[in-house]
Amino acid sequence: MEEKENDLIRFGVSMERKLLCRFDRWLTQAGYPNRSEAIRALVRDSLVEAAWFEDDLEMTGTITLVYDHHQRDLDSWLTQVQHQWEGTILATTHIHLDHHNCLEVLIIRGKPLDIRSLYGTVRGAKGVKHGQLALSTTGEGLP
Amino acid sequence: MEEKENDLIRFGVSMERKLLCRFDRWLTQAGYPNRSEAIRALVRDSLVEAAWFEDDLEMTGTITLVYDHHQRDLDSWLTQVQHQWEGTILATTHIHLDHHNCLEVLIIRGKPLDIRSLYGTVRGAKGVKHGQLALSTTGEGLP
Amino acid sequence: MEEKENDLIRFGVSMERKLLCRFDRWLTQAGYPNRSEAIRALVRDSLVEAAWFEDDLEMTGTITLVYDHHQRDLDSWLTQVQHQWEGTILATTHIHLDHHNCLEVLIIRGKPLDIRSLYGTVRGAKGVKHGQLALSTTGEGLP
Amino acid sequence: MEEKENDLIRFGVSMERKLLCRFDRWLTQAGYPNRSEAIRALVRDSLVEAAWFEDDLEMTGTITLVYDHHQRDLDSWLTQVQHQWEGTILATTHIHLDHHNCLEVLIIRGKPLDIRSLYGTVRGAKGVKHGQLALSTTGEGLP
Repeated sequence: MEEKENDLIRFGVSMERKLLCRFDRWLTQAGYPNRSEAIRALVRDSLVEAAWFEDDLEMTGTITLVYDHHQRDLDSWLTQVQHQWEGTILATTHIHLDHHNCLEVLIIRGKPLDIRSLYGTVRGAKGVKHGQLALSTTGEGLP
Repeated sequence: MEEKENDLIRFGVSMERKLLCRFDRWLTQAGYPNRSEAIRALVRDSLVEAAWFEDDLEMTGTITLVYDHHQRDLDSWLTQVQHQWEGTILATTHIHLDHHNCLEVLIIRGKPLDIRSLYGTVRGAKGVKHGQLALSTTGEGLP
Repeated sequence: MEEKENDLIRFGVSMERKLLCRFDRWLTQAGYPNRSEAIRALVRDSLVEAAWFEDDLEMTGTITLVYDHHQRDLDSWLTQVQHQWEGTILATTHIHLDHHNCLEVLIIRGKPLDIRSLYGTVRGAKGVKHGQLALSTTGEGLP
Repeated sequence: MEEKENDLIRFGVSMERKLLCRFDRWLTQAGYPNRSEAIRALVRDSLVEAAWFEDDLEMTGTITLVYDHHQRDLDSWLTQVQHQWEGTILATTHIHLDHHNCLEVLIIRGKPLDIRSLYGTVRGAKGVKHGQLALSTTGEGLP
């Protein structure tokens, strides 16, 4: 069954010669091996973006935090938060940027609302200099 | 010659059955009449986005400003700025939102750096409550 | 009453000398006349962005479309759509970019879901080369 | 010297009562402990965003990739790329999402152009279903 879903279907696309020419240049620069690959990537991007507005779909994401590790209690507080969100946080990677600055990446899996809520919780903590949220997919149903 | 550039070329794309099925649902919701149309739109979006990082390409854009028109001198200052940027600003539309609030849209054409510079100038003016910049294309070379 | 809401309240902010120094440089470049003005702008930006996720708040926005006006029936179809969305579309500005290309800006006011739905409708039309949506505020409740 | 740069300077900000009231609600929801903390966060966000357009500043970032690990040779190719970019890639974390799907996060440090170039290289690889780039700061000069 799954095999069938992954069967490759071939269909035709029409494109003006000039647009196709610019597309070919763009996809080469962007590192795609061929047109089908580039088009599949554009399609998947659109689907993942659309999913961000559907609250019942599970997604993955990463929260990147840069903080001053001399900030009293921030380290232990972050650890505590991560335990409360066990099941949502799949892994954490910690980098010592320099004597003062740490970078921590939380890899998360959950519904968009939960991911945003967790991001809000850690983003606002005293000592966190910068936070970024990147959303991706679980890959399920996305050949 | 131009005719030739707009010739439609047909080429084949392979896509997993499942991805194609989700793509078809997405493009219907997004209002595209067929796959070729949707794929051309995705391709053009990528090209326009890439152009934003190339400083020598001409683009179009709109600057949307919401401001309090009771703010002393803002109206006349905005008019003055627009005259200084003649040639870059193609048109201005003004809407009276309510007794206090005005919305003004500047339609612009120019190089990315100039557009950003103009946006910075008007965005920071005293009395401007909110500003937004949207970038688009001149349509040239983009069938 | 409204007067009272617009009373200026003064409060103190603490900032590290170095951050303040970089902030001062940034706000000068960005064209803000002073710190209060720049901070108010950052605060308003955050509030407007947050509103985009609240479906019951009225917003304003602009839809920018670039299209080929030789595309049969697109002009009249766009006019028809705009009549269906009367009340949501406040104004339309049309620019002839060159012999082929037109740029049209729709200024809209409505709930986020309606704005997105209207954008989806016009974005996907045959002949539209590029579309952009920019969201702003009605200015109400946003001194 | 560094001590002096981290001295807290206190300055006054004026804000309309209504805007302040909405700001206070927003910062509580966003998890900031007080106004100074929230304002410092908004200021740092603006500085980090501005740095993205300055090619000579070092930044940090994360590249999140979701890919099918049955894709022949992708794993070993990714490892090879990472060795070529040694010095730029600080760490890699790998998650097995399910039988098919892997999520890999590359933590990077470098100039914006290099980060974008690395992202382009891995984003386009055959088998990569989705990629996301998030940019942050090294924390240096950003108290």
